[in-house]
Amino acid sequence: MSNTSNQEYKREIEVTGHLIDSMILTRIFDRIMDLKGEFEVIEFTIGKEKSDKSYAKLWVKANTPEHLREILEEVYNAGATPIEITSANLSKAPKDMVLPAEFYSTTNNLTHVLLDGEWIQVEDQMMDKAIVVDIKRRLATCKPIRAIRAADEVVVGDSGIRVSLPERPREGMNVFQFMSSYTSTEKPVQAIAKKIAEDVFGIKKRKGKLAVVAGPAIVHTGATEALAYLIRSGYVSVLLAGNALLVHDIEYSLFGTSLGVDVQSGSSKYQGHRHHMVAVNELFKAGSVEGLVKSNALRSGILYECVMSGIPYVLAGSIRDDGPAPGVITDVVEAQQKYKEALKGLDLVIMLSTMLHSIAVGNMLPSRVKVVAVDINPSTLTKLLDRGTGQAVGVVSDVGSFLPLVVKDLKDLESNDIA
Amino acid sequence: MSNTSNQEYKREIEVTGHLIDSMILTRIFDRIMDLKGEFEVIEFTIGKEKSDKSYAKLWVKANTPEHLREILEEVYNAGATPIEITSANLSKAPKDMVLPAEFYSTTNNLTHVLLDGEWIQVEDQMMDKAIVVDIKRRLATCKPIRAIRAADEVVVGDSGIRVSLPERPREGMNVFQFMSSYTSTEKPVQAIAKKIAEDVFGIKKRKGKLAVVAGPAIVHTGATEALAYLIRSGYVSVLLAGNALLVHDIEYSLFGTSLGVDVQSGSSKYQGHRHHMVAVNELFKAGSVEGLVKSNALRSGILYECVMSGIPYVLAGSIRDDGPAPGVITDVVEAQQKYKEALKGLDLVIMLSTMLHSIAVGNMLPSRVKVVAVDINPSTLTKLLDRGTGQAVGVVSDVGSFLPLVVKDLKDLESNDIA
Amino acid sequence: MSNTSNQEYKREIEVTGHLIDSMILTRIFDRIMDLKGEFEVIEFTIGKEKSDKSYAKLWVKANTPEHLREILEEVYNAGATPIEITSANLSKAPKDMVLPAEFYSTTNNLTHVLLDGEWIQVEDQMMDKAIVVDIKRRLATCKPIRAIRAADEVVVGDSGIRVSLPERPREGMNVFQFMSSYTSTEKPVQAIAKKIAEDVFGIKKRKGKLAVVAGPAIVHTGATEALAYLIRSGYVSVLLAGNALLVHDIEYSLFGTSLGVDVQSGSSKYQGHRHHMVAVNELFKAGSVEGLVKSNALRSGILYECVMSGIPYVLAGSIRDDGPAPGVITDVVEAQQKYKEALKGLDLVIMLSTMLHSIAVGNMLPSRVKVVAVDINPSTLTKLLDRGTGQAVGVVSDVGSFLPLVVKDLKDLESNDIA
Amino acid sequence: MSNTSNQEYKREIEVTGHLIDSMILTRIFDRIMDLKGEFEVIEFTIGKEKSDKSYAKLWVKANTPEHLREILEEVYNAGATPIEITSANLSKAPKDMVLPAEFYSTTNNLTHVLLDGEWIQVEDQMMDKAIVVDIKRRLATCKPIRAIRAADEVVVGDSGIRVSLPERPREGMNVFQFMSSYTSTEKPVQAIAKKIAEDVFGIKKRKGKLAVVAGPAIVHTGATEALAYLIRSGYVSVLLAGNALLVHDIEYSLFGTSLGVDVQSGSSKYQGHRHHMVAVNELFKAGSVEGLVKSNALRSGILYECVMSGIPYVLAGSIRDDGPAPGVITDVVEAQQKYKEALKGLDLVIMLSTMLHSIAVGNMLPSRVKVVAVDINPSTLTKLLDRGTGQAVGVVSDVGSFLPLVVKDLKDLESNDIA
Repeated sequence: MSNTSNQEYKREIEVTGHLIDSMILTRIFDRIMDLKGEFEVIEFTIGKEKSDKSYAKLWVKANTPEHLREILEEVYNAGATPIEITSANLSKAPKDMVLPAEFYSTTNNLTHVLLDGEWIQVEDQMMDKAIVVDIKRRLATCKPIRAIRAADEVVVGDSGIRVSLPERPREGMNVFQFMSSYTSTEKPVQAIAKKIAEDVFGIKKRKGKLAVVAGPAIVHTGATEALAYLIRSGYVSVLLAGNALLVHDIEYSLFGTSLGVDVQSGSSKYQGHRHHMVAVNELFKAGSVEGLVKSNALRSGILYECVMSGIPYVLAGSIRDDGPAPGVITDVVEAQQKYKEALKGLDLVIMLSTMLHSIAVGNMLPSRVKVVAVDINPSTLTKLLDRGTGQAVGVVSDVGSFLPLVVKDLKDLESNDIA
Repeated sequence: MSNTSNQEYKREIEVTGHLIDSMILTRIFDRIMDLKGEFEVIEFTIGKEKSDKSYAKLWVKANTPEHLREILEEVYNAGATPIEITSANLSKAPKDMVLPAEFYSTTNNLTHVLLDGEWIQVEDQMMDKAIVVDIKRRLATCKPIRAIRAADEVVVGDSGIRVSLPERPREGMNVFQFMSSYTSTEKPVQAIAKKIAEDVFGIKKRKGKLAVVAGPAIVHTGATEALAYLIRSGYVSVLLAGNALLVHDIEYSLFGTSLGVDVQSGSSKYQGHRHHMVAVNELFKAGSVEGLVKSNALRSGILYECVMSGIPYVLAGSIRDDGPAPGVITDVVEAQQKYKEALKGLDLVIMLSTMLHSIAVGNMLPSRVKVVAVDINPSTLTKLLDRGTGQAVGVVSDVGSFLPLVVKDLKDLESNDIA
Repeated sequence: MSNTSNQEYKREIEVTGHLIDSMILTRIFDRIMDLKGEFEVIEFTIGKEKSDKSYAKLWVKANTPEHLREILEEVYNAGATPIEITSANLSKAPKDMVLPAEFYSTTNNLTHVLLDGEWIQVEDQMMDKAIVVDIKRRLATCKPIRAIRAADEVVVGDSGIRVSLPERPREGMNVFQFMSSYTSTEKPVQAIAKKIAEDVFGIKKRKGKLAVVAGPAIVHTGATEALAYLIRSGYVSVLLAGNALLVHDIEYSLFGTSLGVDVQSGSSKYQGHRHHMVAVNELFKAGSVEGLVKSNALRSGILYECVMSGIPYVLAGSIRDDGPAPGVITDVVEAQQKYKEALKGLDLVIMLSTMLHSIAVGNMLPSRVKVVAVDINPSTLTKLLDRGTGQAVGVVSDVGSFLPLVVKDLKDLESNDIA
Repeated sequence: MSNTSNQEYKREIEVTGHLIDSMILTRIFDRIMDLKGEFEVIEFTIGKEKSDKSYAKLWVKANTPEHLREILEEVYNAGATPIEITSANLSKAPKDMVLPAEFYSTTNNLTHVLLDGEWIQVEDQMMDKAIVVDIKRRLATCKPIRAIRAADEVVVGDSGIRVSLPERPREGMNVFQFMSSYTSTEKPVQAIAKKIAEDVFGIKKRKGKLAVVAGPAIVHTGATEALAYLIRSGYVSVLLAGNALLVHDIEYSLFGTSLGVDVQSGSSKYQGHRHHMVAVNELFKAGSVEGLVKSNALRSGILYECVMSGIPYVLAGSIRDDGPAPGVITDVVEAQQKYKEALKGLDLVIMLSTMLHSIAVGNMLPSRVKVVAVDINPSTLTKLLDRGTGQAVGVVSDVGSFLPLVVKDLKDLESNDIA
């Protein structure tokens, strides 16, 4: 790689933080080199002890103005900022649901925009969205393209944007320390279950918020009681799922079966496919899960516990659904909206055996929200990470044997806590 | 297993067809025994040669009337009919979207109902639906629960119903012969590709209909041109996909990238995540794929070929979607409806690397429609079979290397055909 | 498929058993048709009730003598026998480890050979072996090619051979009934664990024999105590494993780690890679596992329990081994021999998370020995079935959460049994 | 985490290299913190431009001498060295195959030991071995435990050891740049195939050495001709495989089948299981592959090309083998020895669809040798990385469609090269 042209296009940038420990500097160097740019380190002060922050100042050099622009966008997304800071550029959306050409596309990391000399934190941070600014109210908000309205002030280009990468957690002994965000079988599952139980227990203690994203395999594999326990005991702040979880849960509560298989004995109950459709029919008859509970027809299960404890749940429909049953949001744009609202202010999200809803939720989360995903299929976890939810830790296990382990450990923690 | 009670509850049933070859009788015996019933064979005439049908008459015996009813429903679903045939029982739907309690829940096999001495074939056969009868017009139709209207005449119980199981294909040498519906890696992929090419070629020749269900991995892995070729050359009658395929296809056509990775060179193009969102934005700006084609901005790719050849496509939204872009049906009930319409009269469905849409389509197909599913993840194929699409054959391969092989074989067939 | 030639080559065959229920007849018809032969059913008597056997007599027809020979070999392997029975043909092995050209290659099903009018059962039945006959002693034995000696009398061709397919189990409620030999995730794992516990408990009760084939993931995932319990409590008759299980087990017993990861806390113990090699070194120092036990250095774990209870174990080396440690058989031919001896007279084999040893054991087992295989990777189970161990049922779960469930159920059974 | 004790135990260390770009410093900080040690950076000079090396000097602090020792071992393995360097400590092996208690256990990274003031490079670097020093000849060599002889001088403790981590490759455009060592489906397989072809082509050009580790799926999936082409054209320096590849290759060459399935047509050839055993028998009859070639019975295939081109091959036996056939090394210790010899001086190893042999080879390779592994099962690739072969890049694809793509690209490169 030789750049024969004179490299005259350069900019001075700086970056602060746990540059080495959190690999921020590594990432910045990587991106410059991957894009065939050059850099020169002008100043570097390393934190002497591990709690001290480091500081680096460097020149980024490129072959053409275009090239420099390309490199800088990457470098800014990796956490650097230009020395000479200029305000964010804004441009009006030409019409509803259409962004100006050079719109800035967000990451899921904490972002600030510079407006008239003031750094304003972007709200509702999500990846692959645009930033809309309300200049008067000094507000910057992540918005999906469908929420863009004509004349919205949209951030364009990469000036006046500061992205802060999450620092790697160190202190404390939660599940995120002993597992990297690397997914593997052959892990000590009992130890992992224990760590998750500790995290869940701690979140309740300090009145934090936990969301559970749940797939129907929970019911198939016999983990219904475990999840019901978590809800009933106040560990879960919100449940996100789809039609399949709803219908399987109702089928199991009414008949003890999941798709016609008796979950306790494992034997195939005949008329099983009917059970599934009868569950759908009962929901239509009652009009809602709440109606089924009120009529005393539904007396246990995941949704039952949500209704009894007043825990909110959001059920998103998909083209694969039988029914979909009442209570399921059939419009995906509306479902996304409801999911997003439900995901505000969370500390932890536990994803259980559902690729569709897990990736959907992953897309909506800022990178600071911790994610644990449990699936028997490693590819679900790989895809979640590939799609940008890099903060997730993946546990390859079957939810039917794993979730009861977590609940057992939680009960031990509860007993010890009383004593 | 000893039934101490006197078995006084019995019914005489009969069944005709390739009872042994197609395992129909095996399945009937299985179900009776699994349900702990008894049977006695009264008459059995075996087809002497393989084209002759066999005939069996037997007593089915149970312990209680309930028990007998249970066994009979299973046995009828396996293809048997009672000797004494009584008309189908009908009951009115109590209100919109609610079925009468004892509704008959369908299989995906060819079904007839007996109305006033006449066997009427059920239309729009799908699994897990109800049968609604229009007595005057002598019509019986599979309906999903959401399409049920108050006072619809719904078939209840299991009288007057005849289910015909698909015979196993024997003659001809298509892909369904040399592969059982068993999914495995370690298959001769080049031979499989050739067989599929022959099937696809033959369907076009005899003016049959082929649907392709397509996931975005087609674009990621570099199979866009292969699928575009199939569409352009008139092999595909309809394309079923989701928002992700649309957006990836447009991104690839506009930028040569898929989620920012240059598909030809494999190198990461920076601003890639922007490409994805820019593709969405361009679609919103143009208003539709057709608009993008008309404006000359879109000049190649999968959707481009559909537009140019007038091949219908249906795009179903999901909660995971970015956008969703215009043209994507965001209401899943409406999307199901459009998919169902698109699936009428098909000979073959090829499913390429999408679990969500493949299972959705599988649920809508009568068992007589052949299905080939290609996915690098064996669990996608296993789930498809588990969910009732038992006629599918699964190919574990990556679509990016497999689909071009199919196209290469098709081109050879075309050359030979001209010569 | 029309055979224009005159079909003059035919033979009369017969078959007895649960022809329909066990799909024997289906398989015979299949194979004739797959090979493009013809058949005519001359006689068919169906068992009236499910305990009655059926009988069929048919003509098999082919185009050429070669063709007929081909079909007949398949049909005989599927359980049929010719009406006119001729003795088995024998031919001498030309030299050590070389078979006569037309040697009969065995299946893993119960096989008899006809010698001078007497049907002799083949001993040590395994698949893909030759049958050596000791005419004087009237013995027929399955032998691997390396055990063949010059002038051994080897069965050639397919005359005088009767293969008996296993009947499908019906009565009793073991794990083999509610699971077909079909592998799937999304099963009720707790129910499956319970069934396996019942089978294991029943085998000990009736003084049957259980072998466990064990991979190192047992130690990684924290199931060491569970397997140790099974051995200590007398449920296991023999343990088959490799070097990795041995070394991991010793490492865990000495340090509480598996490849340096603390199994209880899940945290990475530094010097972990050393632990692994120290375990190997300790074994070399002591000379054997028994030596380590005797010196009081080894006081718990899987191998410890084997030594203390006098349960035989066989450890087979592989090219992947660290060490291999003393006690591991480094010659694979010798290891195969030892495995085979250990596998005699078994009722059940439980395979836990090891593809290499599971497939090896599968190859050595007659089809009558039941097999349960547990692995988190469905492809291990698929390969086991593909390689001919069709009697296996596969459980997709991680052994670290699954095996403790089985042990918990066993303890419940023990308590109830005393009471 | 508060360390209440006074931290008096510390040592000054230093490290040089691309500390940030290659994440060396990140790793050192990580390990100190993971072990709950402290550090203080005394000096840090960053390379100004990307080709300049950086230098860091820091204090490592611990609570106890034990603690310090633990941290230092990790830190040294991560590439640091103490400022005050002391010679390596040596201790005599107490007897054959037994190491002194405190033996240093190696990594797979380039290692030097300090002997009398001179840094000596360790030969035959492999992970999890001991270093034996020949003081007179000034030689240090990695030795497996079985090769240790009584009185061998073995390096103990961690003094006088310097480990050099591999720098991340940057320049040039090989497959290792655009793929991280991260395994994923959904990659542009055609682009990956092209990159691999370029690497393979370049290695031959510059007279480098390529090893292929090959599993039998190559034959099953129809990639025999592709691999045969690579060998015949001089791209492959050595072939490492097992009995299964050998027997499948011979079966395919003799009969066109793989386990009885016709690879070209995909149809099941009956007597297939016989073909497999006949292949074994023919090998025994001829005595060797060379014998089969000489007798003109073997005229194509993978092993045929090896014999014709004089390319060395090593076949390692396993307990799963049928036969094993002559030519297969049945003792695993001997097979390891032969593999190791074959792996000397390599530039690239391509692993094709074999977990057993791939992991075995991975264990034997120094980290500087590049590895590409192709497997349809992502877990094979994950395990390879987990077992320490961190330099490998994984391609999830089926070898039957992937390898022919590589060969096609190679042929294009050859044509262009001539022109």
